[in-house]
This record gives sequence, structure tokens and C-alpha cells, in this order.
Amino acid sequence: RALRIAVIPGDGIGQEVMPEGLACLRAAADKFSIDIELDEQFKDWATCERYLRTGTMLPEGWKEILAPYDAIYFGAVGMPSLVPDHVSLWGSLIQFRREFDQYISLRPCRLMPGIACPLANKKVGDIDFWVVRENTEGEYSSIGGKMFPGTDREVVIQETVMSRIGVDRVLKYAFDLAQSRPKKHLTSATKSNGISITMPYWDDRCAEMAKGYQDVSVDKYHIDILTAWFVLRPELFDVVVGSNLFGDILSDLGPACTGSIGVAPSGNINPEGTWPSLFEPVHGSAPDIAGKGIANPVGMIWAGQMMLEHFGHKEAADTMMKAIETALETGGSQVITPDLGGTGTCESLGGHIANLISNL
Amino acid sequence: RALRIAVIPGDGIGQEVMPEGLACLRAAADKFSIDIELDEQFKDWATCERYLRTGTMLPEGWKEILAPYDAIYFGAVGMPSLVPDHVSLWGSLIQFRREFDQYISLRPCRLMPGIACPLANKKVGDIDFWVVRENTEGEYSSIGGKMFPGTDREVVIQETVMSRIGVDRVLKYAFDLAQSRPKKHLTSATKSNGISITMPYWDDRCAEMAKGYQDVSVDKYHIDILTAWFVLRPELFDVVVGSNLFGDILSDLGPACTGSIGVAPSGNINPEGTWPSLFEPVHGSAPDIAGKGIANPVGMIWAGQMMLEHFGHKEAADTMMKAIETALETGGSQVITPDLGGTGTCESLGGHIANLISNL
Ligand SMILES: CC(C)[C@H](C(=O)O)[C@@H](O)C(=O)O
Ligand SMILES: CC(C)[C@H](C(=O)O)[C@@H](O)C(=O)O
Repeated sequence: RALRIAVIPGDGIGQEVMPEGLACLRAAADKFSIDIELDEQFKDWATCERYLRTGTMLPEGWKEILAPYDAIYFGAVGMPSLVPDHVSLWGSLIQFRREFDQYISLRPCRLMPGIACPLANKKVGDIDFWVVRENTEGEYSSIGGKMFPGTDREVVIQETVMSRIGVDRVLKYAFDLAQSRPKKHLTSATKSNGISITMPYWDDRCAEMAKGYQDVSVDKYHIDILTAWFVLRPELFDVVVGSNLFGDILSDLGPACTGSIGVAPSGNINPEGTWPSLFEPVHGSAPDIAGKGIANPVGMIWAGQMMLEHFGHKEAADTMMKAIETALETGGSQVITPDLGGTGTCESLGGHIANLISNL
Repeated sequence: RALRIAVIPGDGIGQEVMPEGLACLRAAADKFSIDIELDEQFKDWATCERYLRTGTMLPEGWKEILAPYDAIYFGAVGMPSLVPDHVSLWGSLIQFRREFDQYISLRPCRLMPGIACPLANKKVGDIDFWVVRENTEGEYSSIGGKMFPGTDREVVIQETVMSRIGVDRVLKYAFDLAQSRPKKHLTSATKSNGISITMPYWDDRCAEMAKGYQDVSVDKYHIDILTAWFVLRPELFDVVVGSNLFGDILSDLGPACTGSIGVAPSGNINPEGTWPSLFEPVHGSAPDIAGKGIANPVGMIWAGQMMLEHFGHKEAADTMMKAIETALETGGSQVITPDLGGTGTCESLGGHIANLISNL
């Protein structure tokens, strides 16, 4: 049966990069005869414009409507001048993660040709790892509250909650991923020397899980020094796994260290496929450049690439990746977008990549 | 009256870099007629060797013995092959922080001459900021526990605790520091879009505090993107303030971004002087190079510089800083230690800096 994809462009440049992402997906699907249905009926979902008009980011019944899809291909959300971010985000993206139990957040950290690396003396091939983040529990619980408000005794408490099920399943995903890669190396982010209850538990579960993966080499770093190593020795890493908060930090820092935060993708994954997974660019809605046609479409296209890879279409995914790299390396300044020093447009770069996919 | 300093070299290279730190402090005290007493009776305190011999890192009554001192000049602690880190650290350094209410952790992030910057295209002067970290509460509470152990329902909870007193006093310290600097700029680390109880509280207290500092410009970043900006645009920062965990992360990442993690100092400060403050190098005891005489003494010397500055000896502190910079820039490869590419020793570099302090 067809792969069914719900297409939600969302706010700002989400609307501009989405057509390029779709063109590339269609080019790959044509070339490799992938049966894929890209359902574009969700144009105003997860938009702040919709929120202003109707009072909600998503229509009633959204969960039942989206549930039958295999994945959501998502642009971006947020227009802080119209709607506060916590309203727009918690009313859409965070809902998807929770309700569809997308308990894995997955992000590549890879040096790309044509993109200046902020670290000194690194070249393409030096940095190439994945950050796997727990995406549903941990530090992001909403349990807690305030006592003695407005007085000198005022105290605020928030709980971090880790369940065995929650910790084990993200570790398992990360170990499986590491095992599938040539280096077979896993790094666990911890802070058991300071956060003395949840983090030692995380370490214990990791050690337990490691017993089932004798061929995977494992190390752990405290999060403080781990962020330092991301900058000093990023070539050390292969797969890095962290709690919701640590993974959140590392999956921004990692793409930053490769200069690719503007072009990197992100998967929010429900590995069992019980619910739809979601693939999106890391960049946000970028209201400052929205409407100008100069947004870089690579994040959106790369997110599509991740999506095909996730569903096992390896050849198509490899071709898309090759096309992205070729375009960044040899597209030329008239094709490349201004963020990368060119004079091209979202369309010129997106069209170029789509062409390469068809003709590579 | 004399400034009374308790000298605790501790483990590993702490014992090697301490004599150089003391020589430099003495040179500065002589030159600027500072009345300082460097009490060296604590040679085996906070050592793992002592722990193996007596069962404790510190003797009974340590708090009463150290309390009358103005500051502790501390080397390093930890010999993981002899004693697990959580035992040695929690039995010494962490005790000092808590019992002496050293609620500020202060660390400079500064590009230094002669030290390669891991970021591309940065030069001395481009990066120069402070990280101020809350050092007693927040994410480092020990409150919480485990339920349903050993079953699929297993769940582990740990509480983050922020008090108004605790949050306000660190914010006040950071605002005061920002106000004292030319740029007068403060950056607050938050994560109020994900950690929905304690972090919005932190933001509120920061906004409240800002009202009393109209001349300080304030911004806030979520911790994930803030770590990215440390790498991409470190010149943005002047004073950065964060909770215990966020400050911990940023105060390793910041020195890493300047390549100075091996030479940076750290202050654990009780601003009121009710209890002794503690000044130490950021680097640890480095068991792998201990005993070889090649440890870089700059972190220890710079920690002494911070200590003099903290106690208002500005001229002496400026001279020490100048001496450190001059030595790193023009000391030559026979003086500079191997970590920086030279063939010198701990003594050659330390002696050179002490000389410069006397003769600059
Ligand atoms: C050893 C550890 C508990 C400590 C901390 O996290 O406070 C260390 O990382 C530091 O920053 O001094
Ligand atoms: C917007 C915010 C709640 C979110 C998170 O922290 O999960 C974002 O930083 C992300 O990583 O997608």
C-alpha cells in the first residue's frame, strides 16, 4: 500500500520551503517507483493565522484525522508577533510528539560541503554523528508548583520523571542505531555526579542495555564536559543518546558545531509505527525572512530524505542526500541561497536539487 | 588585617601547580605590599591518599578550622583509580560549596594569546565574558526516589528546587557584575518553553530584578540555542547567568570555545564574606600526567589572580593577568608546557610568570 504522508507546512517560511521539499520527494518517488501519497489538505493546520481565526492551532478531531497517516511532513510553527510561542508550539508540534508517542527525536550532525564550519580545521567527513533524544518524559514533566508565593520563603519545585519503559526504549533505539553503523559506538549523556537520583538511574539502565549489545562500544560523559567535547573533538562521536533536556541541548549544539543548524532535519519518531512519525527541518518559521523567497529549502528537503530512509527506501534516500550535497558543493552562487553566501532563491536551490535527484 | 588564605593543593597535579600559584601570589603581594598569609598546613586535606588512610577526605572539625579564613586556594581533587569521584568530590569540594554557602560559581571565558581557539576565525579580544552559575540549589537537590523497583512500572523522580532567595541572590550578583563592565549586558539562560514551572519562575525573577538595573541590557535564550550561540557568535556575550545545571554546562562549554579549558580558573564565592570563598583551576587532578612535572600552572595562577581581584587588589590582579598573557604570548617554546606545544615544565612556565609579575 501507499506510504501516506500528511503535509503540514505551518507558519512563515514553512509555507515556502514545503513546495521544494515536495518537489524533491516527488522526484525521488518517480525515479524509484515509490508509492507515496502526499496529502496537502492541511495547509492551514498548525498556523498562527488559523489560531487567530478559530482559537486553536488544530481543528477538533485532529488526532483521529492524522492517526491513519504513516508520517507528518512538517514545515515550521510560530509567529511570536501574533501568538506567543508557548501557545503555538504546545498547541501543535508538542501535541504531536506526545499524542503520537514520538518518543525518539533524531538529528544528524554532519559537516556538509559548501557550508562553513564554525570549528577550526575541520573538513567534510570529520564530523558525522547522530543525536538520539528521549522526547516524551524526563525533565519536561509538568509536575510541580509554587509555595509561599510572594514571600521570602517562596519556593518552586518541578519534578523530573524517568520511567523504566521510557528510558529503556530510547536506549534500545540508540543501541540499535549504533549497531547498524560502521563504528558501532554509543555515547551516553549523563550528570550522575551532580543530579544524584535520575541520572544514576539512567546510567544503570544504559549499563544494563549494553549487556545485550556486546559489539557496541559504549562510553558516557557528564553533560558539561560533553558539550565541551562537541566543540573540541566532535570526531569522537557516532551515536549520542540523552534525556529529553540533554538531548534537546545536544541536538542544537551538534548541528551548530557543523554550521548546519540552518539546513539540518529532525525526526520525531514513533518507531513501532503505531502512530505517525513527524519529519521537519530544525530551523523555525523565521518570520524575519518569510515572504521574501530566500529561505534555504535544504532542511525541508533533508527532512524528506530522512523520512524515506526511515521507511526503508534506502536507495532513494541516498540519492536525495547525494543531490543535496552536490547542489551545496557545485550549485554555484546564483543557485545557492543568501544564508550560504549566494544570490539564489528558495526556488532556485530547491529546483536544482529536484533536478539532480531525477538526473544523478 | 592580613588576608588569610587556606592553601589546599589536593590530588594529582594539584600538588604540582600549587607551588607555582603560591610563588606568583607572593610575587604580587611583595610588589604591591599586600598583607597576605598563605597557610600551607593543609597539604593532605582533600586528597584520596588521606581518604585511604583515614576514611575521610577532610578531618573532623574541618568547618570550624577553615571558617576563619578569607578564602581557600584549592588545587584539584580526585584519583578515580583509588577512590570513586563521587566520594572524593562530595567529601571535599562539594562540601565546601554547600557548607560555606558559596552560592556563586564564577568563570571567565576569554581568548588568550598563545592558545589556539577551536573556533574558526577568532582573535584575542573577540571573546571575553563571564559565566555566573547558581551553585547551591536548583537541579542539584537530592530530593526524590524510586518506586516499583525492578518492575516494568519502575519510575524514578528527582525534584528541582528553586527558592526566591536562592534565585534572587545569584541574579543580583550577575546584574551587579554586568553593571560594572563596559558593555553592561546580561544574558539569562532559560528553558521556559519546555521546563514549564521552575524556568518561567527564573524568567519572572530575572525580569523583576532587571527593573532595578535600567542601565543593564538584558536578554534571555533557551539553553539549547544558547549553547549553539556560544559556538556561532560568542562575541555576543558579556555576563551570562544560569541555574546550577545550566551554569555548569555553560561554564565548561564557554572555556572550551576559547580553547582555555586547561588554563581557566573558577571562583566559588560567598559574596558577603560570611564564609570563605574558594578559588581553583577548572582542570582537575589529571592523574595521567601527575608526577611528570609537565602540568600547565596557568589555571592555578589565574585562580590566584581572580582571588586578589575578588578582594579588591585590582592593580596586583591586573599585573598578574598581564604577566600570564605575556608569558603565553612571548614565553617561547622552551618555557611553555607541552599541552600548548612547548617543551617547558610546570616550573619553567610558573617561574617565568612569577618573574614577570615582579619585573613588569
Ligand atoms: C563534579 C561535579 C559535581 C561538579 C558540578 O557539576 O558542580 C563539576 O562539574 C563542576 O562544575 O565543578
Ligand atoms: C520549543 C521547545 C519546547 C522544543 C523542545 O525543547 O523540545 C524545541 O527546542 C525543540 O527542540 O524542538
